[in-house]
Amino acid sequence: MSATTARHIYSKLDADGTLTVGIAKQNLPEPTGSRVLIEVEATPVNPSDLGLLFGSADLENAQFDDGTITAQMPAPALRAMQGRVGEAMPVGIEGAGRVVAAGDDEAAQKLMGRRVACAPGGMYATHRIVEARDCMTLPDDVSAELGAASFVNPMTALGFTETLRAEGGKGIVHTAAASNLGQMLVKICAEDDIPLVNIVRSDEQVKILRDIGAKHVVNSSDDDFFARLKDAIGETGAMTAFDAIGGGRMASTILTAMEQVASANDKYSRYGSSVMKRVHVYGALDLSPIELTRSFGFVWTVSGWLLMPFLTQAGRDTVERMRARVRDNLTGMFASQYSARGDLSAMLRRENALSYNAKKTGEKFLVTPNG
Amino acid sequence: MSATTARHIYSKLDADGTLTVGIAKQNLPEPTGSRVLIEVEATPVNPSDLGLLFGSADLENAQFDDGTITAQMPAPALRAMQGRVGEAMPVGIEGAGRVVAAGDDEAAQKLMGRRVACAPGGMYATHRIVEARDCMTLPDDVSAELGAASFVNPMTALGFTETLRAEGGKGIVHTAAASNLGQMLVKICAEDDIPLVNIVRSDEQVKILRDIGAKHVVNSSDDDFFARLKDAIGETGAMTAFDAIGGGRMASTILTAMEQVASANDKYSRYGSSVMKRVHVYGALDLSPIELTRSFGFVWTVSGWLLMPFLTQAGRDTVERMRARVRDNLTGMFASQYSARGDLSAMLRRENALSYNAKKTGEKFLVTPNG
Repeated sequence: MSATTARHIYSKLDADGTLTVGIAKQNLPEPTGSRVLIEVEATPVNPSDLGLLFGSADLENAQFDDGTITAQMPAPALRAMQGRVGEAMPVGIEGAGRVVAAGDDEAAQKLMGRRVACAPGGMYATHRIVEARDCMTLPDDVSAELGAASFVNPMTALGFTETLRAEGGKGIVHTAAASNLGQMLVKICAEDDIPLVNIVRSDEQVKILRDIGAKHVVNSSDDDFFARLKDAIGETGAMTAFDAIGGGRMASTILTAMEQVASANDKYSRYGSSVMKRVHVYGALDLSPIELTRSFGFVWTVSGWLLMPFLTQAGRDTVERMRARVRDNLTGMFASQYSARGDLSAMLRRENALSYNAKKTGEKFLVTPNG
Repeated sequence: MSATTARHIYSKLDADGTLTVGIAKQNLPEPTGSRVLIEVEATPVNPSDLGLLFGSADLENAQFDDGTITAQMPAPALRAMQGRVGEAMPVGIEGAGRVVAAGDDEAAQKLMGRRVACAPGGMYATHRIVEARDCMTLPDDVSAELGAASFVNPMTALGFTETLRAEGGKGIVHTAAASNLGQMLVKICAEDDIPLVNIVRSDEQVKILRDIGAKHVVNSSDDDFFARLKDAIGETGAMTAFDAIGGGRMASTILTAMEQVASANDKYSRYGSSVMKRVHVYGALDLSPIELTRSFGFVWTVSGWLLMPFLTQAGRDTVERMRARVRDNLTGMFASQYSARGDLSAMLRRENALSYNAKKTGEKFLVTPNG
């Protein structure tokens, strides 16, 4: 085959704060050596894609032309994004598709014609050239849709349990727990006998998690939320939280509940209990500052948690073991649900963009670049 | 000798929020076995003592009788202190004095007549019975005043450098850096070749630190504070902070400056740099919530740092090495300065209590329980 004309989504921020998200055409060369050309069939819009795609641009008042969005980036965000000004950046962390051309190396040739998943970035594209070693061959019974989200959410959920083990923790508290990721975590923890406290914010979400067998689900909208959170932490001994929210006081509330459980039977100390309490902040559903009231003693840690540094630190063996578990369970516990689908143009339509950019639980968009 | 009548300071919180701080009499038995009786000569009022002594009680409107303070504890603080309600708690982490009686064990007998320092709590007292193994014999040239504060500040300052090494860090950022502890840290870091960025809040404090040889001193009251902080972090490579302030945005500001230095030469990533940035919060000069703006990527940790858990984790050999260094330098780098002195009654007088409870740099009270 000869050069392929590919189309891909780009996001470009100008020095004056104008953000342009559009579709660019590009001629891709034939893949050589260890590289393969993938015809992208499905690629999800993850919350972790939205930071690069839109950031905190004012989408509500943006201009939506056919296939192009023009929006304004607020000044503080613009200052924090100086590093990307002027560059048209490809977007889309992960996806799945068919290998339609391959370089001469054996590793590449072996993938010819196969359906693969990968997470190289720039997957909101009709075609993408990637290294063969970065591809995961999908089992025959796994559709592109099921394979599309086989990296970010599954590896993150599994990463939480690996982090818990590495830190010697007993159980997990998870926020925004009815998300696709949260549901995977419920299933992983059930299989691995890890006590899990799920924090959600509506009765509807409580039901979603109860229906898949979650034991401890607490609703932050309930009047007795704090008391019930304490009960659940007391029953599970969970002193490690993974928090998708970030902004506001949820991390502080969780630490306070943990501390009250930990110090309930202790002698009084003005420094609080000696039990280590941890919150790993892995998301930013709320962009306001994290507020820590410090009503939880001195033995605590709040830290950022990010998949890539975690994988680097975990090492090759651990990552391979995690990957294998994902590949073997893509039709089961690692299956994602989508509420809407569409090609690259559809992805940039107002109603779709506003919907998935709201990051609401249950609203997830699947991009099908080749229709 | 027979029983000794001792007087000591107690702090008692009642269920209705009334805090009483007064002087109690107690008959101490003769020490037996491995225990010794110390006549307390000097014991400092550390910020870390004030939480137990007064907490956030309203001292400004308290009633000061002769030797007794009666104040009101705000409701949120009262809730957090349920564990101590009704109990008259002895106060005073550390101090120095003369061993005036000893049990029969050899370890106790060896201390008879010697001047020792210790940190058993309850040192705001004329006399205190402690275990011989918890006493550090003071060299002959060390006065009780010089030995009184030989534990909390010196071990904390040394603990910072041990923590830095354990985490593989290159340099330290320190806030409230003109304190007694801060000045010790300047001297330790100079001796150990550890780059140190000192953050203070007045020109007067800049001068204090320059006068003892500090290289990097930045004043948070200056208009160009953030730019100068970045410069200092850039020059030192300091990505580990120890923060005495806690409340407000200082931790966030430090992390943001570190991140801007770390990512200056990196390719843009919406997740920020991959350099780990740490803030250890060891104090609470500001009791308001810690606000983290998260303009510093995902690779960061904010955690509580407390001396006792640190020492437990560091292990016996490290602690012994630290103790020996303190003992050998009590007249030098570990000497504390005091702005006022007085006995137990003087300690509870309005003007003194308001002064040391304000935790101002340079204001430090030394209690001399036996006059």
